[in-house]
Amino acid sequence: MTVRVAVAGASGYAGGELLRLLLAHPEVEIGALTGSSNAGRTLGGLQPHLLPLADRVLQPTTTEVLAGHDVVFLALPHGQSAAVAEQLGKDVLVIDMGADFRLKDAADWQTFYGSEHAGTWPYGLPELPGARAALEGSKRVAVPGCYPTAVSLALFPAYRAGIAEPEAVITAASGTSGAGKALKPHLLGSEVMGSMSPYGVGGGHRHTPEMIQNLSAVAGERVTVSFTPTLAPMPRGILATCSAKAKPGTTAQDVRAAYEKALADEPFLHLLPEGQWPTTASVYGSNAVLIQVAYDENAGRVIAISAIDNLTKGTAGGAVQSMNIALGLPESTGLSTIGVAP
Amino acid sequence: MTVRVAVAGASGYAGGELLRLLLAHPEVEIGALTGSSNAGRTLGGLQPHLLPLADRVLQPTTTEVLAGHDVVFLALPHGQSAAVAEQLGKDVLVIDMGADFRLKDAADWQTFYGSEHAGTWPYGLPELPGARAALEGSKRVAVPGCYPTAVSLALFPAYRAGIAEPEAVITAASGTSGAGKALKPHLLGSEVMGSMSPYGVGGGHRHTPEMIQNLSAVAGERVTVSFTPTLAPMPRGILATCSAKAKPGTTAQDVRAAYEKALADEPFLHLLPEGQWPTTASVYGSNAVLIQVAYDENAGRVIAISAIDNLTKGTAGGAVQSMNIALGLPESTGLSTIGVAP
Amino acid sequence: MTVRVAVAGASGYAGGELLRLLLAHPEVEIGALTGSSNAGRTLGGLQPHLLPLADRVLQPTTTEVLAGHDVVFLALPHGQSAAVAEQLGKDVLVIDMGADFRLKDAADWQTFYGSEHAGTWPYGLPELPGARAALEGSKRVAVPGCYPTAVSLALFPAYRAGIAEPEAVITAASGTSGAGKALKPHLLGSEVMGSMSPYGVGGGHRHTPEMIQNLSAVAGERVTVSFTPTLAPMPRGILATCSAKAKPGTTAQDVRAAYEKALADEPFLHLLPEGQWPTTASVYGSNAVLIQVAYDENAGRVIAISAIDNLTKGTAGGAVQSMNIALGLPESTGLSTIGVAP
Amino acid sequence: MTVRVAVAGASGYAGGELLRLLLAHPEVEIGALTGSSNAGRTLGGLQPHLLPLADRVLQPTTTEVLAGHDVVFLALPHGQSAAVAEQLGKDVLVIDMGADFRLKDAADWQTFYGSEHAGTWPYGLPELPGARAALEGSKRVAVPGCYPTAVSLALFPAYRAGIAEPEAVITAASGTSGAGKALKPHLLGSEVMGSMSPYGVGGGHRHTPEMIQNLSAVAGERVTVSFTPTLAPMPRGILATCSAKAKPGTTAQDVRAAYEKALADEPFLHLLPEGQWPTTASVYGSNAVLIQVAYDENAGRVIAISAIDNLTKGTAGGAVQSMNIALGLPESTGLSTIGVAP
Repeated sequence: MTVRVAVAGASGYAGGELLRLLLAHPEVEIGALTGSSNAGRTLGGLQPHLLPLADRVLQPTTTEVLAGHDVVFLALPHGQSAAVAEQLGKDVLVIDMGADFRLKDAADWQTFYGSEHAGTWPYGLPELPGARAALEGSKRVAVPGCYPTAVSLALFPAYRAGIAEPEAVITAASGTSGAGKALKPHLLGSEVMGSMSPYGVGGGHRHTPEMIQNLSAVAGERVTVSFTPTLAPMPRGILATCSAKAKPGTTAQDVRAAYEKALADEPFLHLLPEGQWPTTASVYGSNAVLIQVAYDENAGRVIAISAIDNLTKGTAGGAVQSMNIALGLPESTGLSTIGVAP
Repeated sequence: MTVRVAVAGASGYAGGELLRLLLAHPEVEIGALTGSSNAGRTLGGLQPHLLPLADRVLQPTTTEVLAGHDVVFLALPHGQSAAVAEQLGKDVLVIDMGADFRLKDAADWQTFYGSEHAGTWPYGLPELPGARAALEGSKRVAVPGCYPTAVSLALFPAYRAGIAEPEAVITAASGTSGAGKALKPHLLGSEVMGSMSPYGVGGGHRHTPEMIQNLSAVAGERVTVSFTPTLAPMPRGILATCSAKAKPGTTAQDVRAAYEKALADEPFLHLLPEGQWPTTASVYGSNAVLIQVAYDENAGRVIAISAIDNLTKGTAGGAVQSMNIALGLPESTGLSTIGVAP
Repeated sequence: MTVRVAVAGASGYAGGELLRLLLAHPEVEIGALTGSSNAGRTLGGLQPHLLPLADRVLQPTTTEVLAGHDVVFLALPHGQSAAVAEQLGKDVLVIDMGADFRLKDAADWQTFYGSEHAGTWPYGLPELPGARAALEGSKRVAVPGCYPTAVSLALFPAYRAGIAEPEAVITAASGTSGAGKALKPHLLGSEVMGSMSPYGVGGGHRHTPEMIQNLSAVAGERVTVSFTPTLAPMPRGILATCSAKAKPGTTAQDVRAAYEKALADEPFLHLLPEGQWPTTASVYGSNAVLIQVAYDENAGRVIAISAIDNLTKGTAGGAVQSMNIALGLPESTGLSTIGVAP
Repeated sequence: MTVRVAVAGASGYAGGELLRLLLAHPEVEIGALTGSSNAGRTLGGLQPHLLPLADRVLQPTTTEVLAGHDVVFLALPHGQSAAVAEQLGKDVLVIDMGADFRLKDAADWQTFYGSEHAGTWPYGLPELPGARAALEGSKRVAVPGCYPTAVSLALFPAYRAGIAEPEAVITAASGTSGAGKALKPHLLGSEVMGSMSPYGVGGGHRHTPEMIQNLSAVAGERVTVSFTPTLAPMPRGILATCSAKAKPGTTAQDVRAAYEKALADEPFLHLLPEGQWPTTASVYGSNAVLIQVAYDENAGRVIAISAIDNLTKGTAGGAVQSMNIALGLPESTGLSTIGVAP
């Protein structure tokens, strides 16, 4: 099978990572690449690490340019995907790497994104209960946010096993590429290096309702989430430290067993041996998720920690994984669990 | 007043930072500097940033060498301070930068450090209720751990005001100097750069009982602490993200008021204006503590975040601050609230 | 003596570092602080590390605002200093941290900066032969560029001793703050971390004629300079690797002797013991210059390497040092040779 | 074709990178993995990024363990390869990633490595004139040093075209993985981050005679090399800034033409468009070499700059490339020119 793929928004970090993966995908032929302000420029100056595409010229993001492909990835600013998707036809696989179609609750969307809700598409986190089946054969996919990916995969085993109270507390450290190529003072190298800084504290981060949606579905009850994201001095990676009070009677053995069971057959989820903890460097450029869990007896809490590459499993790798499922390809095609380290 | 000061353990990071501060202290004359395996070496090769001391030769850590000083700082491995302190005489101000005299509970000491408890000295975190008075005129000071400094200062206003439940959840990111100059594989630059990694997860970190001790004293009830430290790719700094459920009826105004009141008159504690969050880069080399607090209504939690320099306020700066108080000097002598940034 | 000082351009990295130093200067009272697009904002949000000035409001850069000060520092974009300086009066000490008054040759200025030459002021690198005398009592000072500071101080001993041929080859690595707070894609943290990159290759960097001017004056003949700057993944610091063929008959002893003689009495220049090499971390926030030199017999070249903090000795510290000289204060007042490390 | 491969020295950085590449090589089956002090340990704790090999146990480096493979890679400390290679049989392809068989001149070996010369094997830098032919069908390969790879590829076009004088001046910045996993204080993260530092200054670095050997062979005359390596705050990458005086009469067009001609048909060498300069981030994990060249008219010098990943093209990728040639496989099999960025 050869799949002809277009990428709308090829000049940003998500688009660049997607192209890195698609170049290594044996069933993909890379078609149109589009940009907005960068239309007309060659990719060599924008994504200098993608040597095989150095001479490719970015086109404007129009229906004409995107037409004639089997798959179209949208790496566009929030709110722009719906209009493009509508014109692409129902037989085209459209994979939205933005937030537009992730949330089921229109009020949540309104509160956190400030615009009208566009709808909900099958959610591209196949490891969550029921998600894989919904992706098979689907022509629309909403790629999860990077933080919700790391957090949901760290905590769903606890909620599925019914060993955690529905109040999760989460701190996550993200590499700066998670904030995109935006030209903002606090993202300058001089500001970032040597510094840890929080943002969106107190429940305001847009990924919070997405985490609540995922964890509540698994738990079968409303899970509240206290989420604090922090910016770390590294280009890539998310380390998510997640915890919740253990349900009464839970033992350390219960906790371990819950995670062993939930993660056993997943190709990209890897429960580390006891005593070893995830590091983001281990998943640099990889689609793997490293997970470890502990039970703190004194505090009575389950602590689950995951490490992902925010651009790979957290964005573009997750998107390719979902594409594979939607198209009926083997799920791991073109994806690796091997990080580039050190 | 000129105070003659000796430093036992001058070749490590804590000792180096202490000397950096003492060199700028107008009342201090730097006397003997000692090391163990580095005795006999000049400081220039060990602490190349301390140019004025480049030709100083490290002496062995003996009673004879340390005798004849007004103040002796001990930056020694855990368990070695008691023997040295005993021989120094009761009129010498001994400031222990190790853990030996921090904990009040002998059982906690035994559990977390695995040796016999040496005793408890006045605790060098003057901002905690009652601590400053205990330090005045004291001849013995136990300098707090770096994490307990960051965490206790972030949370004590909430517990003093009675607005937080006694179950704190804390994630802290530390620069690598917090782990000292130990030659361990995971501390190599190649491993550290580009990586976030947790350690001591599940309640095992030695600073946990120290936090519990501090917060429980303020709260007037036993506070449990779920503490997860992480190693961040930066040389210095701690960002502590701390939270606890708010007591019923607490409002955002109550939270803000509690912090404004508690931090108002402290020379080194700085509550940021609403909307601005602490960054570790802002306190690089400074003795200041930047604090911000938020109330997450949906999760019902108070989230307090502090940024310190682990080597300055978290170790050597805190030690100098306590020395000033113990000697009756103005508390800020030789200390700065200005960071070196960017 | 209390000197009232104004800073025009207080929101950038050079202005911020200058304020950090001025806050620690015992003879200085900080007066007006100005900005252009940031006028009206408080300094707390722009320079969060300068806690004592957090509530100061930036004023616009006008003659009225800058009037009434003993010293005015100009940290303005190239080409704007002359107009401001003219209106400040001849009895005000004006210290230009920009490039406008560094070059003697109007044609060089025209070639490299593309505008009309404004003139030449006494050059604020007192360690160069004759420079200190020219600064004493002067009411105008041109602060050198950061690269010319590092390079001229590394090589002037060789040229003064007549042991080096007049063809210097220089590669320098600079921290990102050297590029300022400009919002350019290649300065984003995601781009900078993990990457070394050259720029201005082939003779085009604006600091090249300044190096040639300095070295030629010392050598007494025209020195050509091949200069390649590189951007390094660190916020601060310059490491300059400089070399030139040795004049015939030069020995390793000659080289060492030349440097020992030239650097002996300078308060901020520090020739390291043989076998020890400079690191930029050692001068973080310090006004010191670490220098080492070697003679490569096989290649017949003198290799001199210097490390400075680009913002301190390379910009703001050098400016304060020159202010001290111009005002007749002890040259080291308010300046330190102690770095913040690790 | 399926090639059975053993790796002696699988726990270090070179061995880890080699395994990362071999895992993606379609013709390779990974056989025995050996270590010395790490024998008996599983790879999961030593190379946590190589998930598919996590359960593999390291064996001791003995002839028995290494027997029965088609290819044996040696990632051993200097001086240990000869003894192992002798016992492996002449029909086994032995690829030495150490220095033992790189130098042709026994006196150079003795001077720089202090032991007896073991011999010279075909040199694994196929892009150098004549090198590819010598590798075809060879059963022994000496993988070049990382610096000589970056430097020789940057400068050989100039020497082949006869446009450069035989006196090269080189400064190179390397990521810390180039120094291996050695537990040395100056390689600690706390020391490395935020710091640039030189080492081996003045001609003493062991890679110097290897560069001289390569460049002299191309130039047809003895080329002297002044080489200064520096350690940069990043895990991977080498940026080599190389220059030499242009031969009289050389023009900028000559320089460009020389590089276009020399680099045209090489699959891993990439001459950037004029005006674009290499960055090490662009080749993170890639086997590509980014090269750019300039002619500085004022200084009369050719400046050639290359960026490589020291572990990929500089070590393990170069080794796989040579293996492919020696085995008659397509040269690029299992190797990529796509970096992991940002």
